This record gives sequence, C-alpha cells and structure tokens, in this order.
Amino acid sequence: MPAMTSAVESAPRSPGRPRSARADEAIIEAVLDLLAEGSTIESLSIEAIAARAGVGKATIYRRWSGKQALLVDALRSLKGDPPTPKGESVRDDLVLLMRGVGHNPDPRASKIMPCLVPEARRSPEQYALYQELVQPRRELTREVLRRGVRTGELRADLDIEVAMVMLTGPVLMQKILKWHPEIDEDDLPERVVDTLLAGLAPS
Amino acid sequence: MPAMTSAVESAPRSPGRPRSARADEAIIEAVLDLLAEGSTIESLSIEAIAARAGVGKATIYRRWSGKQALLVDALRSLKGDPPTPKGESVRDDLVLLMRGVGHNPDPRASKIMPCLVPEARRSPEQYALYQELVQPRRELTREVLRRGVRTGELRADLDIEVAMVMLTGPVLMQKILKWHPEIDEDDLPERVVDTLLAGLAPS
Repeated sequence: MPAMTSAVESAPRSPGRPRSARADEAIIEAVLDLLAEGSTIESLSIEAIAARAGVGKATIYRRWSGKQALLVDALRSLKGDPPTPKGESVRDDLVLLMRGVGHNPDPRASKIMPCLVPEARRSPEQYALYQELVQPRRELTREVLRRGVRTGELRADLDIEVAMVMLTGPVLMQKILKWHPEIDEDDLPERVVDTLLAGLAPS
Repeated sequence: MPAMTSAVESAPRSPGRPRSARADEAIIEAVLDLLAEGSTIESLSIEAIAARAGVGKATIYRRWSGKQALLVDALRSLKGDPPTPKGESVRDDLVLLMRGVGHNPDPRASKIMPCLVPEARRSPEQYALYQELVQPRRELTREVLRRGVRTGELRADLDIEVAMVMLTGPVLMQKILKWHPEIDEDDLPERVVDTLLAGLAPS
C-alpha cells in the first residue's frame, strides 16, 4: 500500500488509477476468498464476486471480458510469478522450475489449486481455463529444454514435449494426491530431473 | 456361463457354489452399473447394491467384509487382468505395462476410472481404496525394473520408485485429462519409455 500512496503523490494527473487498482485488487481477492471458502469454479458468479468485493458488476466488466478472464488473472495472482531460470545450468534450472510445481505460498492455494486438475475434466471452459493458466509456466520449461539442446547440455534428438510431461507429471501427481505414499515430496524435483537426465539405460 | 454349467455337472457335491458365484457376479455388476450411472463411491450404499443385484444385504456381507473390500473386487474386475510381461526385453515389457495404464475395455470404465484419482483426495478411505486397487499393477512394473537391473539392461543405481512415477504419471495424466493437448496418446507409452531409457543427457 505505501507504493500505491506514492503513486498517487507522484502522478497527480491520473487520480482515477489508484482507486481502480484498489478495486481490481478487491475483485481478485474476492474471487480467491470465495474459491478458498469452497465455492466451485462452476458455481462462482459475477454477482457473488461483485457483492463480496463491494463493487458493481459494471466495474468488473470494465476490466475483464468475463468470468474466465477474471479467473485466469486471479489464479495467476494466487500462484505468484514463476521462478526465473538463472541460465547457467540446465539441470539446476529444471530443478528450480520443478520446485515451483504445486508450490504456492498463499495459504488459500492449498484449498484451490488441487481442485483445478480434477475440475478441468468437467467442461470445455474449465479445461481451457486450466490450459491458459499453466501455459506460461510450460513455456518456461520448454525454453530451458530448448536451450539445453542449443548448448549441448541435452541431446539433440530430445523429445521435448514428452520430457515436459515426464518432469511435471510425477511432481504434480504427488502434490495433488500423495499419489505414491512411499515417495517423499521434498527431494522429488531433484530425483525426477536427475533420473531423466541420466536415463535408465546403463551408461 | 457354459463353464459354470459344466462346473455344476462335474462337482455335484457342492451345489451351493454356482448359485453363490452367480450372486457374486450380480453384486459386482450392480456396483459397476451404479457407479457408471453416476453414483459416487462415497454415496454408494450396501442397501442400493443389494437392491440392484436382487440379493439380501446378508449375502453381500457373507462374501465381503464391507463396502471397501467389495469396491476393490469390483474395480479390479472392471479393469480386468493386467498384461503379463513376456520376460524377454525390459523395454518391451515396460511399453506393454504402460499401454495398460488407463486402458479399460469395459465401456463402464470410461465413466468410473477417471474419477478415481480425484475422488482419492476426498477421504482416507478413498485414498486407501485407490492404493489397494493399483498396488498389484505397481508391483508388476517394479518387478520389471528390478529384473532390468539384474540382467544389466538397466543401470545398477536406478531410482526405481522415481522411475515408476515418471513412467506412469504422464500416461495417466494424459488419459484422465488430455493434460497436454498437443500430445497424442497413441504412442505416448513408447515415447515415455524410450525417453526415460535414453535419458536427456547427450550420449
């Protein structure tokens, strides 16, 4: 909030902006609170969001084209920015990105995020929402793999799309479900990356 | 059914057995029909199963200790027997086992099975049910990996538990959700096995 006050002071010619930013934030928070309290994505309505945020529906529609676009922004805000690959070691960057899978500092995330994958099965809208939400993080991983091919850290004939699901799939399944009870989550990102880099065939 | 008739003819001293086998089958079918029609595992009751199968509740409790044990039998029957590894090539056996992940010839399976992973999150009972259901198939895969270490087809320092989730996780996520829309399911088992065997590091 101090940053916002100083923006008002340093930019007196756009007095509407901070109020609108505050409304945006209240709307995003309303979405996340309602979802964390158990509202499903399906049942969440613009009316309920407006009421909870203390704004009119028109305020929401001025900023977002509809529920889908608002949900994408709210869920991205919940997850925070993805980690930034350092660009030194492909192995270390993959571990960094895999450590971010299912890792969400906001306590509301533990109520909201594990439902997204199952809910994505329910309708084309929810499937599209999930795909749009994860797309930027997927692109980060894809880019690290492409870089590895360029630098020679990874083999040239790499099956990049399959490598992506082999890295993320097990980490996500463990986070959502503790899928294999005997596997410890803590060092799974390292174990997955190192197992995939080395391969199972004898060297 | 012909096999059952001949069992009666060749074993006249246990006349109760075929009738009991028919009741068992009717009970299993009732469970699968009710689940395929949309009943959740949570809401499924022994009363409803008995009514649908045309048997008394006592008949069910004579054969199964409770709903959990009955569900495990019903879901294993739905999935059918897992494929049998041929024991020649570890690579081919892994592909065979991965082809079986999420592959269910019974049309009711497409309604029932994709819900099991999400439902396993709901309660300790459903989690235990899922673990009990998948355990024999996991053991088959684990045994093929152990065999590969013994024969030298796989590296001696293999992380077997992590290799298991890296093989099955991506195939299952694609089957449940078409998780990465751009990946074709048909040859995914081969691509996953071959990518994991070769590894990402340059050879």
